[in-house]
Amino acid sequence: MEKSIYQTHTDVNTLGEFGLIDHITKDFSLQQRTSLKGPGDDAAVIQNVSGATVVSTDMLVEGIHFDMMYTPLKHLGYKAVVVNLSDIYAMNATPTQITVSIAISSKYSVEAITELYEGIAQACRFYNVDLIGGDTTSSPKGMIISVTALGQADPADLVYRNGAKPGDILCVTGDLGAAYLGLQILEREKQIYLSHPGVQPELEQNQYLLERQLKPEAQRGAIEYFRKVKMKPTAMIDVSDGLASDLMHICKQSNVGAFIEEGKVPIHPDTENTAISFHLDPITCALHGGEDYELLFAIDESDLEKIRFMPEVFIIGEITEAADGLKLHTTGGNIHNLTAQGWNHFKEK
Amino acid sequence: MEKSIYQTHTDVNTLGEFGLIDHITKDFSLQQRTSLKGPGDDAAVIQNVSGATVVSTDMLVEGIHFDMMYTPLKHLGYKAVVVNLSDIYAMNATPTQITVSIAISSKYSVEAITELYEGIAQACRFYNVDLIGGDTTSSPKGMIISVTALGQADPADLVYRNGAKPGDILCVTGDLGAAYLGLQILEREKQIYLSHPGVQPELEQNQYLLERQLKPEAQRGAIEYFRKVKMKPTAMIDVSDGLASDLMHICKQSNVGAFIEEGKVPIHPDTENTAISFHLDPITCALHGGEDYELLFAIDESDLEKIRFMPEVFIIGEITEAADGLKLHTTGGNIHNLTAQGWNHFKEK
Repeated sequence: MEKSIYQTHTDVNTLGEFGLIDHITKDFSLQQRTSLKGPGDDAAVIQNVSGATVVSTDMLVEGIHFDMMYTPLKHLGYKAVVVNLSDIYAMNATPTQITVSIAISSKYSVEAITELYEGIAQACRFYNVDLIGGDTTSSPKGMIISVTALGQADPADLVYRNGAKPGDILCVTGDLGAAYLGLQILEREKQIYLSHPGVQPELEQNQYLLERQLKPEAQRGAIEYFRKVKMKPTAMIDVSDGLASDLMHICKQSNVGAFIEEGKVPIHPDTENTAISFHLDPITCALHGGEDYELLFAIDESDLEKIRFMPEVFIIGEITEAADGLKLHTTGGNIHNLTAQGWNHFKEK
Repeated sequence: MEKSIYQTHTDVNTLGEFGLIDHITKDFSLQQRTSLKGPGDDAAVIQNVSGATVVSTDMLVEGIHFDMMYTPLKHLGYKAVVVNLSDIYAMNATPTQITVSIAISSKYSVEAITELYEGIAQACRFYNVDLIGGDTTSSPKGMIISVTALGQADPADLVYRNGAKPGDILCVTGDLGAAYLGLQILEREKQIYLSHPGVQPELEQNQYLLERQLKPEAQRGAIEYFRKVKMKPTAMIDVSDGLASDLMHICKQSNVGAFIEEGKVPIHPDTENTAISFHLDPITCALHGGEDYELLFAIDESDLEKIRFMPEVFIIGEITEAADGLKLHTTGGNIHNLTAQGWNHFKEK
């Protein structure tokens, strides 16, 4: 699908780099009172306030992280922002500003880039962050998107990966494995389309899984709840590589072990059914799927009462001594070692 | 040159993403007292101090911004940092932290990435900035480097592009056109090598121009001087796209015109000689070449005394009324209109 799917294809060359930047930034306005200067100078300017600035950055590469055959550009722009905001929330911080850099090949039209930035703008509005800068350049092939997100927090509120201790309770903010199965569906329909171009893709009945893959959300609600009930997890990470892999980061950095109760891991019915139709074990999808962007966190036992009324939370296990390693307690009563099998971009190819 | 030039080629897969991150960040240490947390968590953490944070980001794409055939990886890493720091200095701010994201294809070995990060580390040490985070992923083809630089300034010290006014004096911190001619030499030698692989490239006698292209420096000294003599330019920009193009940004945003005295534009003797050998007009190279990373700034007439002892400064023209446009006063006494013909990445291809 090298040709544009857009009726009108305006060559980016007609605008030039600065014309394109003007075009894509004209609909953005600065909402944060700390955003002193947005795009248009050598650098953006943010007024410092009392506290700490958190910074996270992610790069999305066409052909590695997304496939233009089934990724709507608006969703791609939205997701590129969300995956970065997710990292800011995972520090128990509030995202405030982002920069977005893109490199695009000549197959992308002004209309395509406009749609990408509509998704970026939508995410900025929804999460109340300002686009304050970026870079726009060409690539010999495909699209690359690099987003840097900045957030603010009181240093005392920050939650790192290294604070979990034996006895802490392990929680997750939502169901897992759905984004991975959404990707499997898209890949299957792509293969069917490639071999039988006339066949309509079966996407309608898989809306939940597809949305989890194509348009994930970051867990702002969890951070707001922690603030409301005045509690702070002992360790936190966002589930981007898969529950097992991300839990391993917490265990390694906190020098602890952990166990997960298989029966407690939240799995959406659509995830369950679709996993079975793909001859996959639903718990395997939930443990290793990745890209769910839920928050995985540990809390002190004494805070258990405080999360009782948290709108979206599932207690899935417990932190143990490092010597106990990382275990899965199966519903059948067995204990398995858990290994990280999450996404490894270097091994994927 | 798809094959590695390194004697030892260790496949990146042997380390995995997290192993690679550990490998490349192990030699970096945090020097800035504001760097509370570097790589290894969901986000880096910077202690806010009184003032403002400035943020700039640039993306470098293989085949567009650099050619691996003649770009040493260590220089590439150094330059990727410097071009971003240059933007921070152009705000009259002090760079403090950077994030670096890279996407690499399988042709790059661990040794190659190590060399790239040696260059990044060297720039960090020289400019006293901390590498606090980034992303490491794979690309289907070539290398992409995205750097975000953060800096600090008192908001009252910040210099934007929009403060120039008629009567202001136009200055530049160093000679122009050298980086462009360095690139021309590299391109010429590449073509010779491609058609006659046995011929040794003629690079020794062009050291100055090649260094300006491959290993540019950012103008920290100018910022330090402004602070020392307690002065502040009325407008400033770094010369990345070419003198004419970057001056046009100042003129457009300040709503002024300007003239440049041809005879005052600093051109290195090597630039002059090499331009002639390429049948190019040296002043054209200086006006439109780009990538020199000198600072172009305007000062109030009353500050003229203050820059008298500035170690590296050249007065090249004056700010005029907007209606006067952008002019070049030639040494022959003629007046030409100046148009921006700098790099346009979308038109290059």
